[in-house]
Formats: sequence, structure tokens, C-alpha cells
Amino acid sequence: MVKEFKSPLGKLSKNCKQIYQYIYRYGAVTRSEIERHTGFPMSTLVRAMNSLESNGLIYASETGESELGRKPRIYRICPDAGYIIAVDITRTYTQVALLDLELNILNSRTFGMYSSNTPDETIGRIIEIINEFISPLDKGKILGIGLGVVGPVDKENGVILNPEHFSASGWKNVSIKKILQEKTGFPVYIDDGANAAVLAEFRKGCGRHHHNIAYLIAGVGLRLGIIVNGKLLERQTYFGHTVIDKNGKDCICGKKGCLEEYFSLNVLLEEFIDEIKKGKSSIILEKVDYDLSSISFDHFCEAAKSGDVLANDILRKAAGNLAVGLGNLICILNPEIIVLGGTVFRKCPQLKTYVESEVSKHCPSTVFSNGELGENAVIIGAGSLVLEDYIE
Amino acid sequence: MVKEFKSPLGKLSKNCKQIYQYIYRYGAVTRSEIERHTGFPMSTLVRAMNSLESNGLIYASETGESELGRKPRIYRICPDAGYIIAVDITRTYTQVALLDLELNILNSRTFGMYSSNTPDETIGRIIEIINEFISPLDKGKILGIGLGVVGPVDKENGVILNPEHFSASGWKNVSIKKILQEKTGFPVYIDDGANAAVLAEFRKGCGRHHHNIAYLIAGVGLRLGIIVNGKLLERQTYFGHTVIDKNGKDCICGKKGCLEEYFSLNVLLEEFIDEIKKGKSSIILEKVDYDLSSISFDHFCEAAKSGDVLANDILRKAAGNLAVGLGNLICILNPEIIVLGGTVFRKCPQLKTYVESEVSKHCPSTVFSNGELGENAVIIGAGSLVLEDYIE
Repeated sequence: MVKEFKSPLGKLSKNCKQIYQYIYRYGAVTRSEIERHTGFPMSTLVRAMNSLESNGLIYASETGESELGRKPRIYRICPDAGYIIAVDITRTYTQVALLDLELNILNSRTFGMYSSNTPDETIGRIIEIINEFISPLDKGKILGIGLGVVGPVDKENGVILNPEHFSASGWKNVSIKKILQEKTGFPVYIDDGANAAVLAEFRKGCGRHHHNIAYLIAGVGLRLGIIVNGKLLERQTYFGHTVIDKNGKDCICGKKGCLEEYFSLNVLLEEFIDEIKKGKSSIILEKVDYDLSSISFDHFCEAAKSGDVLANDILRKAAGNLAVGLGNLICILNPEIIVLGGTVFRKCPQLKTYVESEVSKHCPSTVFSNGELGENAVIIGAGSLVLEDYIE
Repeated sequence: MVKEFKSPLGKLSKNCKQIYQYIYRYGAVTRSEIERHTGFPMSTLVRAMNSLESNGLIYASETGESELGRKPRIYRICPDAGYIIAVDITRTYTQVALLDLELNILNSRTFGMYSSNTPDETIGRIIEIINEFISPLDKGKILGIGLGVVGPVDKENGVILNPEHFSASGWKNVSIKKILQEKTGFPVYIDDGANAAVLAEFRKGCGRHHHNIAYLIAGVGLRLGIIVNGKLLERQTYFGHTVIDKNGKDCICGKKGCLEEYFSLNVLLEEFIDEIKKGKSSIILEKVDYDLSSISFDHFCEAAKSGDVLANDILRKAAGNLAVGLGNLICILNPEIIVLGGTVFRKCPQLKTYVESEVSKHCPSTVFSNGELGENAVIIGAGSLVLEDYIE
């Protein structure tokens, strides 16, 4: 059992843990690949791998390619040697999922976050869903609960501190780790959702071959997760409050010209409605029967997708502003790859092209991606928070 | 010999290396401290430490404190088990030093960098000084040469790429590592001087108890070195080109509003002269016989130190601009401590207070320091680049 890796008296040795970690990180690998990369002598390796295999933690799957002689066996971790519960709490929805040890999603449920979704209400529903998911399973095989939440978050104590813009009240200093641990009995791990997302792309997605990755979740706010030197950044960050115009718009944080005043879901929508009020035309007007108060962000995206000039002008301008903020990120950290995720990028596919084109004027070598894991990046990353604590 | 740590057939084991590394990092430590932190069983530890001691790599110095019984011995690394050559190349001076393994400076020579200091001329003088330093030493004990240079730098190939603002021509694509290696026979290690400085403060100075540190060298340009998650950031950075005013002054990089256009040695001096030209008064005018063309940065600093209103107003305004750039750094990386170094901070001591006061308005928890190693941070860091390659 994976749980034994954590126990100091565990029957599985340090070597086993290191080999299991390698197979978890690199997926399907042959024994000689493990030998080459871990540096273990073959005799030690065989002994440890036999122990992992007989404990049901790894298995040899289909054979690999070899020009001569016997084809080498390919090792993978046994996905069902344990289960993980992962939760993604955002300002617009909460998702609860059951994952196996390969971080595949076995079951998932999502509910919207409205003004009734106080912490109590939300945590209650999360527990209901968890109980449903795990009722057919051996509870001894549940490794724990991983949470990706809206920051800032006190990871050590598991407290959601004071996230902005939640619809319901009460989302301040929520000791969610303690509550979930007491009510379920499982260990709980928590991090900013953007950190979870970048960890997921690093382990299983577009960041697999990189050591320095940034993941931007653009929605109602801007959240940034960073992998630097091959490790998740330990510190709390506030990318939305980087300044791009020191004499610019007032921000709720007290500074002027913060990036979030120039690029967010609400900024795009407000500018769209403002410009229409000022007399600019848009194909959306007919759709909403000329009732400006009913224009939603989905309407804006629909217009942008249909080639609406106004919506695309607003997107391009916002992309220019975001490019300044991303340029600052590049000047400070120079990540190899930047993932553009979150509602805004998901619903406005052309935005990535606009941003790339703006950033490439000054930072031509930065690579952008939409990520390989899509909307599930936070959930998968929240799951990996749990697993990595056992095997790191 | 420390050199054996690098050889795969070295007589000193992996355990010895790990213990030596621990003593190097933490300075004077007792055996039980090493036992507690490395997790080695005492029998293994005694064997490895005896081997290190008989090889002349560590020694037991004065006894520590103990309430009862025998006082524990305190172990340190032997400083003279090897020597390191360290070089700090800047736009205004080049320093060459001989260090021992505790990174103490045994000998040091500095020369100014003028329009005659082409790469050839400079490297020639560096080699002359090195030869002088090492002539009385056993050459077998020289571990190598560490360079801290003005970036951007290609660390792997050891090339100074295209630093701005050198007085002499030719400072572009200088393969300094290859040249120095061929001419001296010693291995050469190279990094940005700001990276060397932050590494030095991390190992031996004000960053000893932190995992996330930034070091700003403010002079003709702005250079930033970053320790993140306890490791030197591997990527090339360009802090001077972070944007604080997207509609601001044109920068040579093609962007608008880069920090370096609002804060640097030259910006301070030019503003000072400009304001005087516009009619502002300053106590420096008499000193230079009203000849504005002869006002130097030292005059500016002298005025500022003497309480000159104009000079201090300029410093305060510049501090406000730097605070925006540092605020962006804090929003992205949130370092525990930021060291303010380089000529500008050294020559204008009150500047640190101005910057602290501006930053604290929005980021009250960030700690600032002038560093404990002063002007020698780059030299000590350049030396540690060499040593760490042997023992990491």
C-alpha cells in the first residue's frame, strides 16, 4: 500500500519509494530506463521492483520495442492500489472528483456557486458527494482529500484566508482543512487552484518536459501558479495585483494600475456594455432584444466567436494589457512555457493568439499553451498534492 | 581533497560528501546536530567523519556548550584544504580575489573598467593577477575560477552575451569560460553577478535562514538574482525591463515604461542635472563652480548625504518608482527578504529607507536588507559557484 511509504516503520524501503516515484513521474518505463536514471545497481533494482510488484503497487504491462532478443517489459503504477478525492473550489463552481493513482478521473460532480453557497453549505455538499463516491470502496484505500481553492490560502493550517469576489458571504478565514479532516477522517491537503493546475500540467500535461512553468487562470480574478526549478513555488503570489500603469486606474488593493483592472472576465464584460452604451454596434444587440442589462459574459464570448468587431477589439486591447503583465512575469522568472487557462481563455479561443502575438513582439522565445488537461487541471493537480505527499 | 568528491572513483564516499556539504552549509556544528539533520546512523557518521578528518577536509575546533558531562566538539571545514579564484566583472570595475574553502577573501585586486578595457585587455589583466595570487600555492589545490559577470550570460557555454553600457567595445558574445580555461588550465564557472551575490547572501549572509531571497544590484543597470525554493533560479532574467508604466518612456528594448528608465545611476544623475538646468538650486553648485557638465554621480550622492533638498526629492521619487517594480516582484515571487545592493544603494544610504517606506504601504511583510557581505557579495558568490559544483 502507498500509505506505507509514509510510515517510518513501513515494510517498503526507501529504495522502493524512490523507484515508485520515478515510475509515477515518467509513466510507462522499462527496468533499464529506471536503472539508468536512478543509478541503482540492477540487483537492488530487481529486489525492490519485485517487492513493489508483489505489493500490488506496480505492474508490467505490454512489452516495449527491442531490435534483438526478448522484448523489455514496461512498468506502470497500479492505478487501483489507492484512491484520492480531489476538490476544485472556484468563485463560479465547485467540482468534486474521485481519482485513481494514475490521477485518472473515475467519477466527478460539479455544482454552481451562488449567493447561497456559504462555506458551511458548500462543505456540506462536498462531504455528501465524497460519501457517495467512496461508499462502494475500501475506505482503507483512500489516501486523502486534495483541495485546489481560490487564494490567498494558508497551506500549512489549511485556511482559505480572504478570497475576493465570492457570491456568498462568509468566505473569509475558513478552516476548511480542519473541518474536512474531522468530518471525513481523511488527511486533507490544500493549495491555491492555480498551483494545483500548474502541478498537474507539470506531471501529466504540457509541462512534462519543462522545469519552469507558469499557469494563469483567468476568470473573475487572475490566479497564477508557478513551477520553478522543477518545484512548486512555496510562496503566496498575487499576479493580478502586479502594476502595469503606475498612474492608472484605482484598484481595491490601494495601488494604481493593477493588471486585474485591465484584464479579467468582468473587465471584458463591462467594457463591452460600456462601449455599446456609448453607441458602438454589436451583433449581440438583436439577440438580447436591445436589453443591455441582460448581456452576460457568454453573450460577449458568443459575439467574439462570431467575429463581432467590437467584441474582438475589446479582446485585443485586453490582450495587449495582459501581455504587459506577462512580459513582467517573463522578465522576472522567464518560464519556458506559460499555460493560459480559466474561463476567459476557454470561452474566447482566439484570445490566446492575440496574447501570443503581443508578447512575441518583445519576448519571442516564450511558448504558450492552453494546457493538455483542460478544465480538469485543478482537479488532477489537487489529487497529485495528496499522492506526492506519500511518495516524495 | 575536495576534488575527489567529483570523481566517480574518488576514495571519499557519497556519505562523506553529504556530511561535508552539511558542514559547509551550516558552519560550526556538533556531531549530534549532523546526526539529527542528515539522518545517518551514528556508526556511519563516525566512520565518514573520521575519514573526512584524516583527509584534512574537516577539523574539530573549540568545544561547544553542554550542561552535563563531556562538552561536544564543534566541526568546521578546513579552510585551506583548497583555494578558489573568484572574479567580479562589472561595467565600472573588475575585482579578482583568492578565496579559501570557507569563502574568506585571502587576497583581492580591483581595477577600473574604462574605454580601453576590451574583453582581451580585461581577461589579460585577470590572468596576470591570478598568476600572481597562485604563484606561492600548490596548484593542485586550486579548485577553479568562478565568475560573476554582467548578464545576459549563457552559463552552460560560458559566454557573456550582450551586456548593455560597457565603456569599451567588444563586450558581445565573449567566450570567457573557454578562454580562461585554456589559458589557466582551471575549470571555470560563470553566472550573472546578481545570481552570485544572492547565492553568497544565502550561504554566508543575511539569507542564511531563508529559502526565497532576491538580490538587486542597482548601478548603471538593474540586475536581479533570485533564490527560490532554496535554489538559485536557473533562468536568465531582465528585472530592469519590467514595465511600470505601459504608456511611459521609451526604452532601448522597444517597450515603454521599463523600470530602468525610472531608476538607475544614470537616471538619478540626469534628473539631478536637468532640474538644476531648469533652475532648481542645490548645494552642489558651489562645489563644481557652477559648471554643470562636471557634476558626477558622486556629487549627487554627496549632496544627498548632506541633506540637499533637490537630491533627496529625486531619490524619493526614484524610490517610489523602484517600489512599483519591487511590488511586482513581490506579487509574483513574494521573497522573504530582498537585498538592496550595488553602487546606488551603497552610495546613497538613505535610499533603502525611502524604498522600504514606499513598499511597506502595500507589502508590509517584505523584509529589506543591505546584505551582510557588502561589496564582496559577488566575489564570495562567484567562489561558491566553484565549491558547490564539487560538493552538490
